[in-house]
Amino acid sequence: MLIGGIEAGGTKIVCAVGDSTGEIKAKQSISTRGPDETLAEIKAFYSNYKLETLGVGSFGPIDLDKNSDTYGMILNTPKTAWKHFDLLGRLQQHFQIPVYIDTDVNVACLAEYRHGAGRNVNSCLYITVGTGIGAGLVQEGRTFQGRSHPEMGHISIPQHPDDSFAGICPYHGNCLEGMASGPAIEKRHGREGHLLGDDSNVWEIEAHYLAHAIVSYTLILSPERIILGGGVMKQDVLFPLIRQKVSKLMNDYVYTGDMNEFIMAPELDDEQGVKGAIALAVGV
Amino acid sequence: MLIGGIEAGGTKIVCAVGDSTGEIKAKQSISTRGPDETLAEIKAFYSNYKLETLGVGSFGPIDLDKNSDTYGMILNTPKTAWKHFDLLGRLQQHFQIPVYIDTDVNVACLAEYRHGAGRNVNSCLYITVGTGIGAGLVQEGRTFQGRSHPEMGHISIPQHPDDSFAGICPYHGNCLEGMASGPAIEKRHGREGHLLGDDSNVWEIEAHYLAHAIVSYTLILSPERIILGGGVMKQDVLFPLIRQKVSKLMNDYVYTGDMNEFIMAPELDDEQGVKGAIALAVGV
Repeated sequence: MLIGGIEAGGTKIVCAVGDSTGEIKAKQSISTRGPDETLAEIKAFYSNYKLETLGVGSFGPIDLDKNSDTYGMILNTPKTAWKHFDLLGRLQQHFQIPVYIDTDVNVACLAEYRHGAGRNVNSCLYITVGTGIGAGLVQEGRTFQGRSHPEMGHISIPQHPDDSFAGICPYHGNCLEGMASGPAIEKRHGREGHLLGDDSNVWEIEAHYLAHAIVSYTLILSPERIILGGGVMKQDVLFPLIRQKVSKLMNDYVYTGDMNEFIMAPELDDEQGVKGAIALAVGV
Repeated sequence: MLIGGIEAGGTKIVCAVGDSTGEIKAKQSISTRGPDETLAEIKAFYSNYKLETLGVGSFGPIDLDKNSDTYGMILNTPKTAWKHFDLLGRLQQHFQIPVYIDTDVNVACLAEYRHGAGRNVNSCLYITVGTGIGAGLVQEGRTFQGRSHPEMGHISIPQHPDDSFAGICPYHGNCLEGMASGPAIEKRHGREGHLLGDDSNVWEIEAHYLAHAIVSYTLILSPERIILGGGVMKQDVLFPLIRQKVSKLMNDYVYTGDMNEFIMAPELDDEQGVKGAIALAVGV
């Protein structure tokens, strides 16, 4: 049984074909252009395969309220050509098979839950720290959604006492994304994070914001594991710092188990998006 | 069909009998003493009724992991006589009917969702602001749980610029509960909140903390409505202040609809606990 999985990102779209075990049989990366040209390339790739179902992990904002008239459509986005594009509807119309759609971070979380760092737990939160900050939750095999999809990267966090940076979020200034995303690090310190080496002040501040966010996520969502991915998390120095700060902030208030098992790196790297999209189409 | 509902609090336990419409047919309040004496009084009250099922909203911490050996047991609590008491097991053993258990705040949320201020939405978050701060979420008729139950009252929030109070939470100092619970207001200002009148500085600071928390809850859980109850929320001045601050902090980043419909007062007052416990036993 062949299952399609699409990772739809703002700069590239990865199309893949796999099966329910998570094995990828074919894969192709496409540059994200206008919706019609991009859709034509997606159709061309899949024309060689007979799919049973298709899963999509999409950039947002996207309407995921199944009761809504605009379910599966791209909402208000700076990529104006995609605004109000009926991504789900157009894919269903073309493929005439069941198509499932969710956010990119939820799908990434599902991939890790099914095949990666979350495969031996009942619930996990995947946080990506890169150009932006986002997070997705999977519980008992299902991705979590509210009225609209969560935007966990924009929560309020207490300012680090030695940090006078005002933040770069155009909506909230000093929210988590405004203070701790890759561009925030670059703006605060004048250089990209990977050029800043192990400067302890840089990562002390970064770990402070991420640890406060992780504590809030844990107290609100109570996941069994937290997986931290994205470009910023390639700095190995961050993991021990974050674990130490979360442990101190939590102060044994809720059970998290061994911090090395509670806060982990992802395992799937490049194939996380398509593996998650395929897992979404496989179902629980 | 008669359904039992027990609101098990730290100072009193309310036993009730009702039906699936939410109507309460009989009710009795018992002082919370040792677990055996209290259980005897519960049994005595229900000896006059033939129940089909029983729901319990309990003080915590309580083990709500169905896969755990200690499911339904009271965990580490300052009320030492209740520590490790098998509340669910003992009730099941006595009544020999299905017994359902959840946290007091989850059950309160379920009551408002079914019969109160949340009855026309698909998801709601109930926040109680009193001696402590806690919150429960209901989505599509089900209460939300993670690995253990959430402890949403203890999240980190940014300090108000005019507030130098250090907070009173024994675990986290200046977490939400440490800064905005009833005892925190009393400690900061030297008098209980209801004696402080409409002093704008008091409620400006209080609204700041609650608004930041509501923004985080909204970005993480994306509920359709937020219901604010508990003793502190009896100060009418708080609702407009909180709505105004949430609106400003959110800055139209996610859709919340009309703020007067998004943030509301509870409707059920005294019967919230037992109505929620009965709703829990009725099921989705």
